[in-house]
Amino acid sequence: MNERHIVSAYDKDLQQLETLVSEMGGLVEAQLSAALDALVKLDPDAAAEVISRDKIVDDYESQIDLHTTEMLVLRQPMAQDLRVILVALKLASNLERMGDYAKNISKRTVTLSGTPTVTSATQSIKRMGDKVLEMIKEVLDAYARRDTELASAVILKDEDVDRMHTNLFREFLEMMTTDSQHISLGTHLIFIAKDVERVGDHATNVAEKIHYMLEGSMPVGERPKDDRSSGILVEPGEGE
Amino acid sequence: MNERHIVSAYDKDLQQLETLVSEMGGLVEAQLSAALDALVKLDPDAAAEVISRDKIVDDYESQIDLHTTEMLVLRQPMAQDLRVILVALKLASNLERMGDYAKNISKRTVTLSGTPTVTSATQSIKRMGDKVLEMIKEVLDAYARRDTELASAVILKDEDVDRMHTNLFREFLEMMTTDSQHISLGTHLIFIAKDVERVGDHATNVAEKIHYMLEGSMPVGERPKDDRSSGILVEPGEGE
Repeated sequence: MNERHIVSAYDKDLQQLETLVSEMGGLVEAQLSAALDALVKLDPDAAAEVISRDKIVDDYESQIDLHTTEMLVLRQPMAQDLRVILVALKLASNLERMGDYAKNISKRTVTLSGTPTVTSATQSIKRMGDKVLEMIKEVLDAYARRDTELASAVILKDEDVDRMHTNLFREFLEMMTTDSQHISLGTHLIFIAKDVERVGDHATNVAEKIHYMLEGSMPVGERPKDDRSSGILVEPGEGE
Repeated sequence: MNERHIVSAYDKDLQQLETLVSEMGGLVEAQLSAALDALVKLDPDAAAEVISRDKIVDDYESQIDLHTTEMLVLRQPMAQDLRVILVALKLASNLERMGDYAKNISKRTVTLSGTPTVTSATQSIKRMGDKVLEMIKEVLDAYARRDTELASAVILKDEDVDRMHTNLFREFLEMMTTDSQHISLGTHLIFIAKDVERVGDHATNVAEKIHYMLEGSMPVGERPKDDRSSGILVEPGEGE
């Protein structure tokens, strides 16, 4: 009877930990989505809301850290359960970073909102962002449904995001080279695009950790990487 | 007798974990130092060495993760020891990111090494980098000597780094605005400067975790932040 009671409280603890991670993931997804909308509309108020909500994301990480530590002290979990608990800790850390990137995008959106912009540029970033949002949605589904295959599928998508990012980097450099009016704008857009790409990287980390949680091993094979932006140089005249 | 044996093996495990973290920290410090030297000399071979050594940094993180998991399973540590173990996990994650930034700096150094550069610009980055190296050195000392005060002192230094970074961001934007030949160069330099600033952020995270490990609480007071680069716009003509 007593043992049964303990097991059940333990299961409840585990369940609660997974609920916290899922809620945090849903919030981060909403934050990125709102940050991208605010960017396309250059809406400083909407961007300011994203910035202020980041505190809630941070609080989730603290809660998950605390809950994890308590479980380790009180429950002394073994093998599979320990994996679930340690992975929750890593997911929270990755999700917190993803939230930070959404906040950073919104900070730059506030800066850009008073300036003339280039609509096609923000819309290109939005397209890449939608791909990343898709990754986040799927990785959260993979976590909730304990779906290894879906987690693996997300990892492969990051290559598309990296490629889109490399193209955007070149496009924005060319825009700056063609028109010096666009140098500040282009620089901030390049950082925003990089932030979106980094969210994709972290969604990939999350997918890898979920794979590890479910299978006890990291996914086999080299993680595809195709972000070549750090190797790009554009000569003046090239973009004209 | 048997109990004594167990306690001693346990202490040895803890000691080994701390040694791994210290070694990893030393390696990351050396990586950033080498990346900054390669940047100032625009030496693609030295930069390539930094890039290839990053694998060793990553291996340290895997080793620390593994060692931590084993200790949690085998030793079922309580309170203070659990803190030491969980903090090791967080430090490894932060150090791994710091190593990534050193690698990223070197990737861009390879790209820039064939192009005409602006010596004063790379030297300005080096100066900020030296400040960050100082933070890393001190934070590793604080960890080895269990020195809360030193850890707290490191946190305050990040403000200087943030300020240096904001100034560099403006300087490089002005350089690009003044001479369109420098747009690709300036963009990569802005990213390199940002990477150095991020290493400082992570050194600050490390300091906070060490404080938590030693005192059981995070440092009191708002963490100083003075990176205002995301709010900077430079109009053409301003930099001339």
